[in-house]
Amino acid sequence: MSAVMYEGKAKQVFQTENENEVLIRYKDDATAFNGEKKGQIIGKGEINNSITSILFTLLEEKGIKTHFIKKINERDQLCRSVEIVMVEVIVRNIIAGSMAKRVGIEEGTVPPNTIFEICYKNDDFGDPLINDHHAVAMGLATYDELNTIYDMTAKINEIMKAFFDDLGITLVDFKLEFGRTKDGEIILADEISPDTCRLWDKKTGEKLDKDRFRRDLGNIEGAYKEILSRLGGK
Amino acid sequence: MSAVMYEGKAKQVFQTENENEVLIRYKDDATAFNGEKKGQIIGKGEINNSITSILFTLLEEKGIKTHFIKKINERDQLCRSVEIVMVEVIVRNIIAGSMAKRVGIEEGTVPPNTIFEICYKNDDFGDPLINDHHAVAMGLATYDELNTIYDMTAKINEIMKAFFDDLGITLVDFKLEFGRTKDGEIILADEISPDTCRLWDKKTGEKLDKDRFRRDLGNIEGAYKEILSRLGGK
Repeated sequence: MSAVMYEGKAKQVFQTENENEVLIRYKDDATAFNGEKKGQIIGKGEINNSITSILFTLLEEKGIKTHFIKKINERDQLCRSVEIVMVEVIVRNIIAGSMAKRVGIEEGTVPPNTIFEICYKNDDFGDPLINDHHAVAMGLATYDELNTIYDMTAKINEIMKAFFDDLGITLVDFKLEFGRTKDGEIILADEISPDTCRLWDKKTGEKLDKDRFRRDLGNIEGAYKEILSRLGGK
Repeated sequence: MSAVMYEGKAKQVFQTENENEVLIRYKDDATAFNGEKKGQIIGKGEINNSITSILFTLLEEKGIKTHFIKKINERDQLCRSVEIVMVEVIVRNIIAGSMAKRVGIEEGTVPPNTIFEICYKNDDFGDPLINDHHAVAMGLATYDELNTIYDMTAKINEIMKAFFDDLGITLVDFKLEFGRTKDGEIILADEISPDTCRLWDKKTGEKLDKDRFRRDLGNIEGAYKEILSRLGGK
């Protein structure tokens, strides 16, 4: 395997011998608040590799095209090579986190409509909220690509909400990233895990996601393991 | 005339004897950076009353419904009474100001598409950028109302760009506010003036707007008078 092509905050990407495929390695590193808070969550890499593999397999079964090919070992996935669209797509079923602060709405408020947001994926500017016109003006995506992304995101939200609900988990919000294949097709990329979702226990409201790390709530590993266990992983 | 119904940073609104009409008085007060910088621009109230009266008359002639009825004296306008939609609508033909800072684009960059933004009109939160889903979730407007607002805004931009261009002025960006009539119709409200637009001299690039106040560029009154003079006012 060749050298690291790209190193992110939670994953490394390696080129494979097949130019259309990359190996994605999940790290234990955790960051929050645009990298200001750093730490490690022991076992997170393996857990998130497993969780993402289960969820991307589910989404593929439901007709969503993703970069996921297969899980190849405890930390690594084989994925299609894509050019990442430099917007983070956020879905909010319940208001929490940055949106609660931004406009002064109490965390836990259920809005009458699903909220979709895009942010400019750029740490230097703190991943700022943008809108479609900004994204197009900045050359991040075309209006057509954004429409495809929103359509796919809405479907993914419906699939994931129902799936987590059956497992006694409320899908509060989550972040997605998309990629362009060599042919220009938009497919789901990145990961879906407790690093990128807010997941609350339906009965107790207990937070089972990265907010335990962000907010120093303790039992971080336990929460990630609990999610994997409910998903049927080990 | 009754007491002040509403006092904003640059205007006062008085109820008239006719419940469907208000008197809007233009003040000399100037604020910037969400009220952190405060001052007075002598004569601004009279100039902005005149400029807004000219521009709203133009827009009405071009088929845009507005709250403007007539200018009744140097500082005052008679307007239809509306409930203000609590979003500020921003149009950017050239990138400047907050957007330039937000995503790191050089001021003066001409984007390939017109940029429309909405902000939550709330000083306590610094008028934060939001998107349509936030606005609907917060009950600020419906999706239908927002579509009407964007359609009207695009038309207003085309009318104003051409009009200013003929006067040797580049319409860089501007902010609009809309109101709901008693019948629920969306009409243009507030003002259009050098307080709410960035206006650059086409030949010299000289700033003829509130950035002279924000950035301490001097000759603020001169710039406002120059705009009024080019518009044919005195």
